[in-house]
Amino acid sequence: LDSQLEDNVPAGFELVDTGTGFNEHFGPVYLDRQRKALAFRAASRHSNIQNVCHGGAIATFADMQILAVLSCFAPGDVHRPTIHLALDYLAPTPLGAWIEALVTIVKTTPNLVFTQAMITADGKSVARTSAIYRNYVTGGS
Amino acid sequence: LDSQLEDNVPAGFELVDTGTGFNEHFGPVYLDRQRKALAFRAASRHSNIQNVCHGGAIATFADMQILAVLSCFAPGDVHRPTIHLALDYLAPTPLGAWIEALVTIVKTTPNLVFTQAMITADGKSVARTSAIYRNYVTGGS
Amino acid sequence: LDSQLEDNVPAGFELVDTGTGFNEHFGPVYLDRQRKALAFRAASRHSNIQNVCHGGAIATFADMQILAVLSCFAPGDVHRPTIHLALDYLAPTPLGAWIEALVTIVKTTPNLVFTQAMITADGKSVARTSAIYRNYVTGGS
Amino acid sequence: LDSQLEDNVPAGFELVDTGTGFNEHFGPVYLDRQRKALAFRAASRHSNIQNVCHGGAIATFADMQILAVLSCFAPGDVHRPTIHLALDYLAPTPLGAWIEALVTIVKTTPNLVFTQAMITADGKSVARTSAIYRNYVTGGS
Repeated sequence: LDSQLEDNVPAGFELVDTGTGFNEHFGPVYLDRQRKALAFRAASRHSNIQNVCHGGAIATFADMQILAVLSCFAPGDVHRPTIHLALDYLAPTPLGAWIEALVTIVKTTPNLVFTQAMITADGKSVARTSAIYRNYVTGGS
Repeated sequence: LDSQLEDNVPAGFELVDTGTGFNEHFGPVYLDRQRKALAFRAASRHSNIQNVCHGGAIATFADMQILAVLSCFAPGDVHRPTIHLALDYLAPTPLGAWIEALVTIVKTTPNLVFTQAMITADGKSVARTSAIYRNYVTGGS
Repeated sequence: LDSQLEDNVPAGFELVDTGTGFNEHFGPVYLDRQRKALAFRAASRHSNIQNVCHGGAIATFADMQILAVLSCFAPGDVHRPTIHLALDYLAPTPLGAWIEALVTIVKTTPNLVFTQAMITADGKSVARTSAIYRNYVTGGS
Repeated sequence: LDSQLEDNVPAGFELVDTGTGFNEHFGPVYLDRQRKALAFRAASRHSNIQNVCHGGAIATFADMQILAVLSCFAPGDVHRPTIHLALDYLAPTPLGAWIEALVTIVKTTPNLVFTQAMITADGKSVARTSAIYRNYVTGGS
């Protein structure tokens, strides 16, 4: 079931190379560059004890919102460490749903990048999230 | 390497049954009931592109802090959905480190449970986190 | 100077009755019901040691965002206590500027109201804020 | 009544010079340097429509928690702008109560200062708050 669903990617989305480790298990993540939308298909590996998406899976996805902001995802691209990540969970996120984070770049300073996103499941709001990332132009914490 | 490290669990910790799905891949999580400390051994499956713990792995672990609060972890125990989760990342979390969340129950109301935790890696602060969970005594959102 | 500036209220805004106490000293707050925009004129009484708006003044204004959400501001209207308030400060807020909070109702449940706002000073983003208020339909929290 | 209460300052607290503007109306704030406790007496000028402390007054007080962290409050001391401020309101804060913020320096980096505080009213927890301030050692955002 999961694998069938994962073949079902809406037009306009391309696969993002998210590397190995924790992202690898999270599974494929897709980007619509025009809409600055990051997305994935909720599957059983993202589930919690209630058989909906685990809050930590949504948080992991939210932490990737910086990917939708960076213009280039080549391996040589500079990593932006997360300083702050906040999530409000608005509704359960059902398995099988197409999960999108519509990402807004709120502000970029020499040291910081502020982003926020509304996360939807098949178009219904399930979480809102805001984040502060360290920018690397001038080094610094 | 990972499996050797994971055999190395400090005294006072017992394995928590965290169920299947996203928690299963996260791997074993341990609880010291006396100290209300939740813990895991950072391994390569938790890594990000910088080869330290992924922010999402720390967030997933932070979302489990409610486990250290609930007195009973039996399968029949009532689930507390997360309403709000916030994390500030203080330092990189190295792989191989023993990660602990020292959890404080800040307040319990009929509808809400407020918790916070300081997360350390081998004793060094790496993240602070606060959360609001829905309580189930009176039903409600 | 302050009083001259305060006479300068853009079309579409009406004065909100915010009551006595802390709001009274904060001073006049205006609402554009169409745009769900809450606004005030930054004055010297809102200043900090750097002679820009105090972070606490912006936070106080942010805490009022629920006013832009409630359909009715009559004295008999039910109060919604704040559960959670978060602000990210993006830029200094100059005195004399017209400060607007464009408020979005993110989600309403029987027990909770989730809102967020972008706060601008003369059109430039200076803060983003999110809040969770207790709803009173079913009692609770 | 307010003025009588304000003469009632517990031993160990000294008056902090918080300057003019928004802080001036907020009124006297006290510091216990040993305990890193910042405090004020809740008065009618801090009230909301429910005749308890306004959420914005608590937020304003929370934004001052950096004062308890800085070792020196001389006028020449370097200002630390707030980047992030978050509050969870745990209980109503009654007027007349002695309000304390017990402040913890969580982490200091060249660019950032992370603090958090538990705010109590006559010893009862009423809010928890966390903040990120810009540090000025290396300049930066």
